[in-house]
This record gives sequence, structure tokens and C-alpha cells, in this order.
Amino acid sequence: MGKNVIVGQSGGPTAVINCSLAGVYATALEHRASGKMGRVLGMRNGVKGLLERRYVDMCEYIRDDLDVEILKRTPSSFLGSCRFKLPHPDADEEVFAKIFEILKELEVGYFFYIGGNDSMDTINKLSIYGERMGSHIRFMGVPKTIDNDLAVTDHSPGFASAAKYVAVTTKELILDAQVYGNGAVTIVEAMGRNTGWLTAAASLAKGPDCVGADLIYLPENPFDMDGFVNSVAKLTEIKGHSPVIVVSEGIQLADGRYVSELGREDVPADAFGHIQLMGTASYLAGQIRAKLGAKTRAIEFATLQRCAAHLQSVIDAQEAYAVGQNAVNAAALGQTNQVQIIKRLSSRPYAFEICSMEIEKMANIEKFVPAEWINATKDNVTKDYIDYALPLIQGEVQPYYVNGMPRHIKI
Amino acid sequence: MGKNVIVGQSGGPTAVINCSLAGVYATALEHRASGKMGRVLGMRNGVKGLLERRYVDMCEYIRDDLDVEILKRTPSSFLGSCRFKLPHPDADEEVFAKIFEILKELEVGYFFYIGGNDSMDTINKLSIYGERMGSHIRFMGVPKTIDNDLAVTDHSPGFASAAKYVAVTTKELILDAQVYGNGAVTIVEAMGRNTGWLTAAASLAKGPDCVGADLIYLPENPFDMDGFVNSVAKLTEIKGHSPVIVVSEGIQLADGRYVSELGREDVPADAFGHIQLMGTASYLAGQIRAKLGAKTRAIEFATLQRCAAHLQSVIDAQEAYAVGQNAVNAAALGQTNQVQIIKRLSSRPYAFEICSMEIEKMANIEKFVPAEWINATKDNVTKDYIDYALPLIQGEVQPYYVNGMPRHIKI
Repeated sequence: MGKNVIVGQSGGPTAVINCSLAGVYATALEHRASGKMGRVLGMRNGVKGLLERRYVDMCEYIRDDLDVEILKRTPSSFLGSCRFKLPHPDADEEVFAKIFEILKELEVGYFFYIGGNDSMDTINKLSIYGERMGSHIRFMGVPKTIDNDLAVTDHSPGFASAAKYVAVTTKELILDAQVYGNGAVTIVEAMGRNTGWLTAAASLAKGPDCVGADLIYLPENPFDMDGFVNSVAKLTEIKGHSPVIVVSEGIQLADGRYVSELGREDVPADAFGHIQLMGTASYLAGQIRAKLGAKTRAIEFATLQRCAAHLQSVIDAQEAYAVGQNAVNAAALGQTNQVQIIKRLSSRPYAFEICSMEIEKMANIEKFVPAEWINATKDNVTKDYIDYALPLIQGEVQPYYVNGMPRHIKI
Repeated sequence: MGKNVIVGQSGGPTAVINCSLAGVYATALEHRASGKMGRVLGMRNGVKGLLERRYVDMCEYIRDDLDVEILKRTPSSFLGSCRFKLPHPDADEEVFAKIFEILKELEVGYFFYIGGNDSMDTINKLSIYGERMGSHIRFMGVPKTIDNDLAVTDHSPGFASAAKYVAVTTKELILDAQVYGNGAVTIVEAMGRNTGWLTAAASLAKGPDCVGADLIYLPENPFDMDGFVNSVAKLTEIKGHSPVIVVSEGIQLADGRYVSELGREDVPADAFGHIQLMGTASYLAGQIRAKLGAKTRAIEFATLQRCAAHLQSVIDAQEAYAVGQNAVNAAALGQTNQVQIIKRLSSRPYAFEICSMEIEKMANIEKFVPAEWINATKDNVTKDYIDYALPLIQGEVQPYYVNGMPRHIKI
């Protein structure tokens, strides 16, 4: 029998992160059937849990094809996640030695890590250390992020379903906002610390049946508070129109201060030193209320946008599965320190292929919305963005509803 | 040709309020075909718009059966809404005289108003005034409210879809919250000013695949801040568990202060003198952070819960249509000053019928969650609530997706 497989999930979940897990699992089982691979283990809470020897045998929980399908439709990270930053192997060897000791114990030959930038960095460091130590373990990265900020890949699994959620929900909110015709101002906050990919998906709401969001602010450009207030003032003069403005949680003033910091005293940082951003929409709503006297409403999509498995995009679900599948096949061929990326072959009709790529090309690089995809007044996106994003939100995966509720699977 | 029909929508929208409009419209067209009724007019922004002679001919916008189906799947109030309180006919006759003058101009014989408590009051007052003046206009109320606080009816159209949204989304959030196993506390805020029907729907998340919300607080009972903090403290001691608490926006301390008021200076009131409630979850999250040092996240469903047409319950959509349909049929038979209510014939299997009822029995009465449906510690609901609500969220209406986005219809 072949060496065992271990798979983990890291960073924030997406609506389709378990599709990638299903892709890894189901494909590894095929290689197990042919004798190439062994048991499929799942690390609980990523590398952090692995260090505590917390893992499961996936077969005990995902027992048949129906379980695989339910797994694909289950939000959050089935195995649990972590935010754990590995030191550089030169700086602190101890944690690496421990991980490799545990992997040896578990007879692991294939290591898959589903995550974003930080997770790719983890895979890269483990690969470097492993190579140095003469390990034969294959380390493969499987990308995911609702932020869509990963380099090299055309887009990231998880982005399209979150974008579909933002687009559909913003469309519903715009219709709802118009109901009294009273000029009230709605400010919607989407995730996006440094990049505006997801927030920009609000632009997809516009169509023959929807006026669309009035203003969309991305973190790629400095946020001009006075310009914002003036723009909203003009919008409130349109008779019967209730403006809807969508902002990224991470918009910053020209001086670098986050808008979300302005009204708050305590801004806690996470393990990566990231500041926890909250309340950008609330703060801006307060400004509009104070300066224009308008009725306002602040709406945060919060974690809803990353766990709305009831609104998965078919394209996203397929691609998320495919990157997991491809990672296993590539590892079976002997590849290591690689990440699976999505290459767009065509937008109309949409076609893609999955390719294997050296992970250094992705790790620790952030991809921004191109400047030419943002309009001249920096308060909306151009048709380029629509052409890019619209093919990705096509199709709707239906949850398996049992007794009126979506059925999920959990450990 | 028969007298014309006019229909309006009032108060906050629901995900199925346009199903009721479709029911009124399609049924009125049938009576038009038989010569009993004439044109079908829609008042823009309810009685407020009618007073400004703002109305449309529904046939110009809803032209065929496909349009009717799209209307049923369109969130927000198609005709626009208002919050307009009629005075008592004895106190101020002028506004009544004007309304009846306009109705006479428009040759209206049938008046349908889709709304909640306040709208039923409007119908009642118009009926009383009309009867006094010898008018033959038939006034009919068509109930809707996500709050489910209307008396007499088993439940209100609009409630079940909002409940399905709260249940499904809370289930997704609970899974998401567990992802790091770090004991972070999530506080979710659902709508419900005085009654906890909708917030209680979070209880439907619990099942074999979900631990459920840990605590659910309804406005039916005084909110005990110390008890809350103590309960959360105990929950954070459970290893690897991240508590999720769901609260109604309208929870109040024993002294009558809204929790949402505690951290705020300016609390604006609307035309009915209702205080605008916002930030209950944020305030409670702040308390937990300060008193327990726990990581927290506050999530407000805000208007998302009333406009999520992508998550309509089939039962709700059918009933919302049926109350509109029945109102027209009852008016055609000569009834006036009535409201259509839902009578539950059986829960297992679920069966209902629509009945016509004198509107005074509903207007200005609020229905609360029965005390015996709330547990002894006042932090969850009992099986009685589940048995009541679960049959109502059955089935999923799919939006008509075009190019990846739900298609709606608008004026």
C-alpha cells in the first residue's frame, strides 16, 4: 500500500472550501484503490492541530458518495481551521522537526493544504525544510480565498460563490431600499482588507431590473471622505431614489488610517498582525447622518458572505473540486511544492483548465483589482470587471434540503 | 364592466409580499374577464402615494403569466410602500374626504391593502368612514409581516420565508463560527421589536448536523444582562466550542430600556413613534469583550432577512398568494372591512385554509410568543415552537436565474 495522505484547511473558510476537500479526498481514494496512496487523514485545525496530533481518518466521516456530495454543500471548513504562521526554517527549526516527526509517525507521503496566501507560505516552508532533510513527502497547495487576492491564478476558488452572494444580496437590498422612496442612504460593507475583488461584485447587481449600487469603493484607492459625502449629497437629491453605497471593509484614507479605525478606540490585531476591521459602514453612515441629516442604514455582510453555501456558484464549486483533484493527481506524479491554479481559456463561452505551478510564485503576493478596471472617479468598476466576474457566478448549486433545512456534514 | 380595483402595499416588505400582490392581481383579472371587476390599479407608496394621485395600471407592467411568476419571486414591495398613519375619522375628516374623492375619480369599487397591523388599522378606518358616507367600495386587508405578530391568524405571510432565512443562515453561521475552535463569541441580531417569533426561528438550525444556537433571547421577557454574561462565560469554558447567541433587536432590560439604547446617544423615532433599533448585538458583543475578554463578532441580519427572495419558503409563497386571491374573491362576494387569515388545519401533514375575518379582530393587536413556548431559563424556545414553525419553512422556491443572477421585475 502507498504512503498515507494528510489534508488540512487553513485561514478563513469559503462556501466551497469543502468542495476542494472532497476533491482531495475522492481522488486520493482512487489512488488508494490502485495502491498508490494509503489512508486519507484530515488534520484538525490545520497545522496547529497537527502539532497537537489532532487528526481524523476521513473514511470514518465521509463514508459514501452521498457523504461526498453533502460535504461539497457544507459551509465552513469541515476539518476546522487555524491562523498559524510558521517561522522561517532558518530562524526556528523546532516546530519543523516536530511536524516532520508526526508526519513520519503517521506514514504520510502526501500533504495537502487548502488555504490562502499564508497557507501557501506554510507549504513553501515545509517543502524547503523537507527537501533540506531529504524527505520524500509531496507538499501541495490548494488555493482558496473569497478575497481573490492570490497571484498567478486567474481567480481563486471561493471567490465566485462569495461574489454571487454579494451580487444577489446587494440586488435584493437595492430593491428593498427603494421601498419608501424616502431618500434614505444604505451603506453596505463587504469583506476585502486590501483588495476590492469581492466588494466589486456588487456591480453585478445592475441590470434591466435593477438600478445597481450607486457607488462602490475599493481599498485599491485612497478613500476621500469629503468626496464621498459630496457624492452621496448629490444622490439624495434624486427624487424618490434611495442610494445604496457598497464599501470594502479595508478602505483607508490617504494618510493610511482605516475608515473603520476612525470611530473606535480599541482595534485588536490577530496572530498575523492584521487589524480586525469592523464598522466601516456604521462609521460612514454616522458621517452621512451628521453631515447630510439623511436617514441611514448600515449593513455588514460579515461572515455571511463566506459561509452562504446555499448560494454556491456551480462554476466555483466545480473549480474548487478540480483544484483538489488536480493537486492529488500532480502529487501522485511526484510533484511537490506546487499550487494548483486556474487558467481561463475563454470567457465566452467560459472555459478553464487547472495547472500546477511553483508555489513561490503565489506565496505572499497580493493581487489587486487592476487600476484600469476602476472608473475615473474611483467610485465604481468598469465593464472589464463585469466581463471578468460574471462568467464565474454562473449556475446555482442547490443544497440538499431535508425537512426544509440544508443538510450538512460535521465531525 | 365592473368597478375598478386598486391595490397597495404598506409597511416593511417581506420576501413574499409580491406573491400577495400577484394573488390580488391575477384573481382580479379573472373577475375582470367575467365583467365583475374593471382595471387593476396599483397605488405607488400606499395611501401616501394615492393622496398624491400616484398610481399605475398594473397591466402595463405585469403583462403575462411569466411576469406574474417573476413578480412572485421579486423581493421588496413592487408598488413601493409607506408608513402613513391615518387619523381617526372623527378627529380629522379632511384626509378621508380626499382619499374618497380620488377613489371616486378612479372609479374604484374594490380596495386591497397588503400590510401589517398599521395597515389593517388603515383599512378599518377607511371602511368605517366609507360606510358612514354610504360608499359601496369594498375594503379588504391582506396580511403580511415578517414579525408574525398579527392576531387571529395562525401565522402571517412573510414570516415563514424570513424564518427560513434566519434558520438557514444561523445554521451556516454556527458551522462557520466553530472553524477555529477558539471560543470566540458570535452574537446575531434578528428583527423583532416586541415579539420574538422571527428570532426564535434560529432554533430551527439545531439538528443532527448542527449544535444549534446556544442561547436565544426574545423580547417577550426582560433581558438580564448579568445572567447573560454569566451564561456566556459558562459556554466559553467548553473546550473548542465557539458560542453563538441570537437576540431580538427589541430586547429590553427589566426597567424598560432597550439594550440597543444603552450605548447610544441619538435614537431617532419614525412616524409611528417607533424607536429605530440598531446595534443590540454590537452592544452585547462589547459587554462580552469587556467583561470576559473573549473575542467577539456581532452580526445583524438587518434588512437581509426581509428581502431574501432567493430563500422563499414554498408554503409561505403559496399562502401569501392565497390570501391575496381570497381577498379578491371575498370582495367580489360583497364582503368589506375584512382581513384574510390563515387557519392551520393540521401540522403533520401540514394543511391550511384561508378564512375571511372582521378586521377589528386583528388591527392594533400584537401577538406574542406564548410564555409556555419559552424555556424556564428564558434563553431558548421549547419544542412547541419548533412544531409550530418547522412546517412553515418547507420547500424552496427557486428564483428565475438569468445569467447567474435572479431576475426580478420593477416599475
